[in-house]
Amino acid sequence: MPRNILFIMCDQLRWDYLSCYGHPKLRTPNIDALAARGVRFSNAYCQAPLCGPSRASFYTGRYMSSHGVMANEDATRLDEFTIGDYLRPLGYRSAVVGKADNRKDAKMIAAFGVDPESEFARAALSGGFEPFEVHEGLLPGAQRNGYVDYLKDRGYEGDNPWRDFAITTVDGDDNLRNGWHMRNSVYPARIEEKHSETTFTTNRAIDFLEQQDYDDSWCLFLSYIKPHWPYIAPSPYNNLFNQGDIAPAVRSKKELDDPHPVYRAFMEQEYSESYARDEVRERVIPAYMGLIKQIDDELGKLFDYLKSRHLFDNTMIVFTADHGDYLGDHWLGEKDLFHEPSVKIPLLVLNPNQTAAETRGSVCDQMVEAIDLLPTFVEYAGGNIAHERVEGHSLMPLLRSHQPPPDWRSYAVSEIDYSDRGPRTLLDIPPYECRAIMVREARWKYIHYNLFRPQLFDLHKDPNELNDLGEDPDHAQVREEMRKLLIDSRRRLKARTGMAFDNLAGMGPERDETLGIVIGRW
Amino acid sequence: MPRNILFIMCDQLRWDYLSCYGHPKLRTPNIDALAARGVRFSNAYCQAPLCGPSRASFYTGRYMSSHGVMANEDATRLDEFTIGDYLRPLGYRSAVVGKADNRKDAKMIAAFGVDPESEFARAALSGGFEPFEVHEGLLPGAQRNGYVDYLKDRGYEGDNPWRDFAITTVDGDDNLRNGWHMRNSVYPARIEEKHSETTFTTNRAIDFLEQQDYDDSWCLFLSYIKPHWPYIAPSPYNNLFNQGDIAPAVRSKKELDDPHPVYRAFMEQEYSESYARDEVRERVIPAYMGLIKQIDDELGKLFDYLKSRHLFDNTMIVFTADHGDYLGDHWLGEKDLFHEPSVKIPLLVLNPNQTAAETRGSVCDQMVEAIDLLPTFVEYAGGNIAHERVEGHSLMPLLRSHQPPPDWRSYAVSEIDYSDRGPRTLLDIPPYECRAIMVREARWKYIHYNLFRPQLFDLHKDPNELNDLGEDPDHAQVREEMRKLLIDSRRRLKARTGMAFDNLAGMGPERDETLGIVIGRW
Repeated sequence: MPRNILFIMCDQLRWDYLSCYGHPKLRTPNIDALAARGVRFSNAYCQAPLCGPSRASFYTGRYMSSHGVMANEDATRLDEFTIGDYLRPLGYRSAVVGKADNRKDAKMIAAFGVDPESEFARAALSGGFEPFEVHEGLLPGAQRNGYVDYLKDRGYEGDNPWRDFAITTVDGDDNLRNGWHMRNSVYPARIEEKHSETTFTTNRAIDFLEQQDYDDSWCLFLSYIKPHWPYIAPSPYNNLFNQGDIAPAVRSKKELDDPHPVYRAFMEQEYSESYARDEVRERVIPAYMGLIKQIDDELGKLFDYLKSRHLFDNTMIVFTADHGDYLGDHWLGEKDLFHEPSVKIPLLVLNPNQTAAETRGSVCDQMVEAIDLLPTFVEYAGGNIAHERVEGHSLMPLLRSHQPPPDWRSYAVSEIDYSDRGPRTLLDIPPYECRAIMVREARWKYIHYNLFRPQLFDLHKDPNELNDLGEDPDHAQVREEMRKLLIDSRRRLKARTGMAFDNLAGMGPERDETLGIVIGRW
Repeated sequence: MPRNILFIMCDQLRWDYLSCYGHPKLRTPNIDALAARGVRFSNAYCQAPLCGPSRASFYTGRYMSSHGVMANEDATRLDEFTIGDYLRPLGYRSAVVGKADNRKDAKMIAAFGVDPESEFARAALSGGFEPFEVHEGLLPGAQRNGYVDYLKDRGYEGDNPWRDFAITTVDGDDNLRNGWHMRNSVYPARIEEKHSETTFTTNRAIDFLEQQDYDDSWCLFLSYIKPHWPYIAPSPYNNLFNQGDIAPAVRSKKELDDPHPVYRAFMEQEYSESYARDEVRERVIPAYMGLIKQIDDELGKLFDYLKSRHLFDNTMIVFTADHGDYLGDHWLGEKDLFHEPSVKIPLLVLNPNQTAAETRGSVCDQMVEAIDLLPTFVEYAGGNIAHERVEGHSLMPLLRSHQPPPDWRSYAVSEIDYSDRGPRTLLDIPPYECRAIMVREARWKYIHYNLFRPQLFDLHKDPNELNDLGEDPDHAQVREEMRKLLIDSRRRLKARTGMAFDNLAGMGPERDETLGIVIGRW
């Protein structure tokens, strides 16, 4: 029986905007059903709270400092291996439907003389997956994708119907309004729900599954570009929630007193200043919730299809997000920094096998990271994990038993490089100094900044992260201990990517001697 | 007038085994002449005291943690750029004569469909240089190289005349003796001096120069494999020095009391145990000195040739080594660890231009690193340094003026991975934990080991590094300060390799808006 993998990702979905993670108003029964049959991870972190770098970590199983994708526009290095590269030799067809947002450098590939239309090159430009249906609404080239052709076929006119319909809104008087502007988030998208991005993406996922025979092995990366900007939902999803459904922003006046310089620079970005206003939150968050509700409904449709083909019995299903969204918490919009709303991700893993019976419906509070999925997939598929490259740890032991392995990691790491972003200009620092690293263990979250003092939060006493202890003299010892963890995290990076453990272990004086090399014998 | 580059490297040449660096008995007048006309650097460090990783740093201008070459057999990653790659677009022919000891992964290159006989592939297998004459005596495939053909043409018989003549010795009774065995270092190589490796290498360098017209721009990497093992010199060089010319070993009984565990494991290697015996030092070091003397004589011949063609006036000449040799100091043989005899390198740089007039014949005590040569070459050649990849700093300001730039680095970094070496087995630790990093500033040298305590030396009070303060309670604060430098060194690594500063600086909200992306506007 083939062991299939359905890897579902949402873009910019906050971990706590699902009912299985405790959202008080938003019901997501189809996603919750995965939690009920699998494991819900309550301490899962992305490796970078920014789309492209985070995805590069999901795809390669490696930290940002290892794969080197630090901005959305950075190419992945030529010789990085991705999920698709590891699963292909195991007989898997690995395809993406939706947002890949990761590519190797097309010019470098061409310099090597590779045909840009070859299977290899096409996957290299789509996160290592076969580009079954790539749709990346935000990128400038987006007007040439399959979704736009689909819209044109259904009568949506113009050279860019994605821009003019899917992310444009119409107010009560039928006036067109710019979907990028947050004041317009209350209005519906200028498109029927059945033609919207989320629905199209689900339908194309089903098209992919239709092509698979029951004996085929496949990994489908179903990658919704929602609820990411622009926050525009099609009717009726624009109208399901209202300001009464919104929790108050998590923020304090104290945060505005002499904040950390990098934090301040992010607070001064237009999106943060907008989100700092209640009227913005009250208009935008209901639309954000509606977009999530739509995804949940579409997943219900997809899961019904899986059941109809008995695929639930042999498909590992993962549900996650590339990072969160501040939504005005801590006076911030967007993501980028390391408060929980930004860096923590939802993560549900359903392993259909009997070996996972003990953990069904349970919550796991171990520190897990986005990079853990790739080795989980490889182990589930029956392959050997390339420990010489892969920095994540397979989650399979945590799916088998409530008792974690004794050496499971004690802290999670996430990184950011904001050299291509607004705060760099405000801070007026060189691009290569725009870096920060988070180390988060059970109690403490420490954030190292280049050129600036660190931040420190006590998550036991201050779970909302409102009290920055980064300069507090009483916590010098904690900071020193956290710096040791930071060094520990750096030493674990697998900069060497070419040689397997077994090869290394076979080297040394004995091997040298078989080659006629005898060093130091009298 | 073309600006040529002659980049001379010796293998395993200790920094203090040249008369310009103060050796009391060994006269190296031709090398000294470079010091007299250029700058002698008294604090130059290799990035890894091991051939392949060190060379990868010289060739890429990047630290070991960045280029990922940690063992001699590790391939350089496909998309690393090397000296040749940077100089080629500037019109330079960049070639290697001698030892390259660095290659990209031939299987990966083939997987990309590149012709293995193409210029690109041939350079990719030779450290990025055109392989004018590659001779790497130690590698198993060495019998097939040009030097072996040369020997066969001159009547040296058998399938591997390198092994049977160049590194085999004959004692006084004409018995053949194994050149790898240190007891035989007093005997001459079984080869005429004019056919020995060092002479052959010099002659081939002259052959390369013969092909160059005066208007051609070239960079010649002249890479002697001597005085590296086996320590076998041709007559008369085996006989120029004797035990009276040997300085006593720098070591103390205290070093044997409860040494650092990694240090102890290196002391227990066969080569260290051999070198710990005086009779070994007395037989081997004279041969080591003879091999250096031979290089100096050969360089005299080469410099005469350069003068005869007026090439001294427009050629930057660099003389250095990939790392040192313990020669029994600290009870160690070989290199690998971070005492000065191993990690410090000789470095002489002669810039022929008028702009360097002020510094001729001077000594520079700034912290410089092997990775600084690549940007020096690029600046000398008139190119732009790719700061987004290159981690070294051009030495040109230090060649122009006695006053260093105000932001010159305050510490040097070197790294080792011993996962493929004998001590790993003794310590019985996983391959990926076999790493150490040295941070050396003006006074303190701190060495971080994975899994083990650090080492610390006070180079002011203890220049011979005999007193390890790694656990001394009085130095906890120093260690903490050094750990901060260690973190500082990690944050400077350029993991991102694809995007230039200017591109990054051009990004941000303004650029997004021109693409129709407006994040967070009300």
